[in-house]
Amino acid sequence: MSEAHFVEELIDQGDDFDRWYVEVIRKAELADDAPVRGCKVIRPYGFGLWEQMVARLDARIKATGVENAYFPLFIPKSMLEREAEHVEGFAPEVTWVTRGGDHELEEPWAVRPTSEAIICPIYARWVQSYRDLPILINQWCNVVRWEERPRAFLRTLEFLWQEGHTCHATPEEADARARQMLEVYRHFLEDDLAIPVVAGIKSEAEKFAGALRTYTVEAMMGGKYWALQAGTSHNLGDHFGRVFGIRFLDRDGERKFAFSTSWGLSHRTVGATVMVHGDDAGLKLPPKVAPIQVIVVPIWRNAEDLGGVEGMVNRIVERLSAVARVRVDWRDDRTVGYKFNEWELKGVPLRLEVGPRDVAADQAILVRRDTRAKHIVALDHLAATVETLLATIQDDLFAAAQRSLAGHTAEVATRDELTARVAANAGWSLSYWCGDPACEGRVKAETKATIRCIPLEQSAELGTCIICDHTSHQRVVFARAY
Amino acid sequence: MSEAHFVEELIDQGDDFDRWYVEVIRKAELADDAPVRGCKVIRPYGFGLWEQMVARLDARIKATGVENAYFPLFIPKSMLEREAEHVEGFAPEVTWVTRGGDHELEEPWAVRPTSEAIICPIYARWVQSYRDLPILINQWCNVVRWEERPRAFLRTLEFLWQEGHTCHATPEEADARARQMLEVYRHFLEDDLAIPVVAGIKSEAEKFAGALRTYTVEAMMGGKYWALQAGTSHNLGDHFGRVFGIRFLDRDGERKFAFSTSWGLSHRTVGATVMVHGDDAGLKLPPKVAPIQVIVVPIWRNAEDLGGVEGMVNRIVERLSAVARVRVDWRDDRTVGYKFNEWELKGVPLRLEVGPRDVAADQAILVRRDTRAKHIVALDHLAATVETLLATIQDDLFAAAQRSLAGHTAEVATRDELTARVAANAGWSLSYWCGDPACEGRVKAETKATIRCIPLEQSAELGTCIICDHTSHQRVVFARAY
Repeated sequence: MSEAHFVEELIDQGDDFDRWYVEVIRKAELADDAPVRGCKVIRPYGFGLWEQMVARLDARIKATGVENAYFPLFIPKSMLEREAEHVEGFAPEVTWVTRGGDHELEEPWAVRPTSEAIICPIYARWVQSYRDLPILINQWCNVVRWEERPRAFLRTLEFLWQEGHTCHATPEEADARARQMLEVYRHFLEDDLAIPVVAGIKSEAEKFAGALRTYTVEAMMGGKYWALQAGTSHNLGDHFGRVFGIRFLDRDGERKFAFSTSWGLSHRTVGATVMVHGDDAGLKLPPKVAPIQVIVVPIWRNAEDLGGVEGMVNRIVERLSAVARVRVDWRDDRTVGYKFNEWELKGVPLRLEVGPRDVAADQAILVRRDTRAKHIVALDHLAATVETLLATIQDDLFAAAQRSLAGHTAEVATRDELTARVAANAGWSLSYWCGDPACEGRVKAETKATIRCIPLEQSAELGTCIICDHTSHQRVVFARAY
Repeated sequence: MSEAHFVEELIDQGDDFDRWYVEVIRKAELADDAPVRGCKVIRPYGFGLWEQMVARLDARIKATGVENAYFPLFIPKSMLEREAEHVEGFAPEVTWVTRGGDHELEEPWAVRPTSEAIICPIYARWVQSYRDLPILINQWCNVVRWEERPRAFLRTLEFLWQEGHTCHATPEEADARARQMLEVYRHFLEDDLAIPVVAGIKSEAEKFAGALRTYTVEAMMGGKYWALQAGTSHNLGDHFGRVFGIRFLDRDGERKFAFSTSWGLSHRTVGATVMVHGDDAGLKLPPKVAPIQVIVVPIWRNAEDLGGVEGMVNRIVERLSAVARVRVDWRDDRTVGYKFNEWELKGVPLRLEVGPRDVAADQAILVRRDTRAKHIVALDHLAATVETLLATIQDDLFAAAQRSLAGHTAEVATRDELTARVAANAGWSLSYWCGDPACEGRVKAETKATIRCIPLEQSAELGTCIICDHTSHQRVVFARAY
């Protein structure tokens, strides 16, 4: 046991949160640079985290009656251009395939930045009668949007996500589906990732290109208390139905255009999990999605110790495997201290130490990553204690994030106060807004803060717009965003 | 119950097997055409089948110590061109991105046709010491190869697959890993998809561009008894290690190049499953991967019947859900006969009928898709019977496919016989081959049959090459291939 004694140190969050993020992503081996501009490699530990998220969100999506399918990566240019607002919104970000095999393509193909424009023409073929509705389909895939300044998980040229696309006979049903999927996202974020969110509606300026209305769940990151849009769900009205000719013969014998929705959540949620729960020592992963929930660190000084420890560790792994994702760190070129630091950096919720004394006493030591509290546990109670602790850690992480969200959100009535809060990275501001894009634009120009959403939950009180003093019936969340 | 009484008829396999394939893919709703040249849409039923396959193969791959990760979709041109044989093999099939956002790229990017050329430069950064080896990583992703004549699942411009990429300190370890993954594929195909395979080595002419040696599992399709390459595993030697500079400091203090492997299996296996097990009535899905294992068809004539049937169906679903993937077909705009035909076409292994008489007798009728055998089963024994029948169907499908493989494989000693067999679509020919590419080329030119593989299992007997009469120590499989 020599070579490396200490894990390379991480910068403190308070010194430079953005640099802390970049460092922790790299040092915890979540992602790495790639030799293609704008792209990152997702390493096994980061991908393992995403896999856990995918499994949970996929089950939640399927539970609402949605099925998975797969649509092409490429969208012919003319098809992408059919919905005017949509193409205007996405054109500056599109990468284009112009050559295939040995020849130039007759028409360039966009690498999908999102798939409405390729899916709608297909739905137009599938939908003939009201009996064909609703269509409820989701796909897990990669999408590409041009990006000059990549940031692992948050903003990369290529990213992984799911995108759901549904078609309905009535506008009410489409809106209900868009809201239902927003609730799915909310439960996933809050219950699985321990990230509290504010659910709301995007302003016209911030909504999805081509949508009638965009619903969003916004999460507050740590450090600078900026917002991250964690998932969006769009009521597309009949815009895409009309443009792509998705028509059906209704019960009443009339031919009508279908109403549609789309909704997406990407691997930004990995970045969100890092920024919401992490601390100066590194990641703190919520147990439900941690790829490793319990890291076993055996401690031995000599071959004599090793025999007993090995037997004990094997028994422990056997007992714990049914209740948790367990891994044992048997490396012999790292000190125990190094291992402790590294698994803390990697945010494994529970560390389990087994040394010769523990073998003698038929016990093990459990250490929580979040509180660092130690628990000496008899082998017979180990599985039950691990289960309880994992559930407790999950709850405690959520409660801490809720406190942070509440503690860094304030009702703000004046423009000066808003400006000062944004400048000081003090958190989110809840302010009245009249609904005029000019007032919204003014805040953005002056402070760089945007309207993250108009929360779905509103009090009945009226107020005055923080910019123009007109009467307003709605508070909105102003914040800087990633 | 009216509108549609009969499922649209399928052409017989014997009349035109290729057309049967195209029709069954469309009518069983596995895939559909897409409005982008060369691409197909994978519909929910087809994707559900692929999802079951992915889950099983993923578990098998992980059980060997491999972890999943994700590498970029794009490969800069200069990077793809570094391994000369590799780029020569793939260049004619590559699609190129030349524009991003509003500007031309300085250097075109290939949309990955396979990922060695983007992964190796990254591994070169990760590997410094023998302690960093082996690297055992897999990714599930989409790849793109130019395709003029697409065929759903078998040959499409974009397709879904997994590609594993490993690095090792010694050539022996790399070869052992390549063989190990071939065995994983073999077990997946035989045990999960009920498709028997012949495992072997590709000839130099047929091996992966850039590999030292390519291992393959070849499966025999129905109808024309052509071969389908179902999965390949490549021992890449140190070719890629040298070209991309993957070097490590070994235990002995010397800096050495790493040895690598790659191995891939794609959604062609969906096509293989269709072609191996299907019959004139449609698909026959192996229970282990069937998205729906039991389709419940309730039978009722009036509202009075319906009440009792509904209660019974609910009880049945509750009991069966723990042992099988069950769906109920409650459609009221389709006749019972239509439903029977449709679920046969879709290859659901077991049909469960519940009518008023069954309610009265507390029983249900189970019908096997493969044999059409009927079983009247008391409710109390239903779950156990379903489990047993699903396992039996799985075994029987495998046994039938084994019989077909054996029955359409013959030892062939003369060129005339080989030519006649290939022309008559009589099946595979096992013939001696001297190893000379000229002889191999001659068979291909004359018959269009290729050497599918040099089987790993060989008898000790010597023979004479089917072309040149030189002594040969190996039999090879000659066959037409998809």
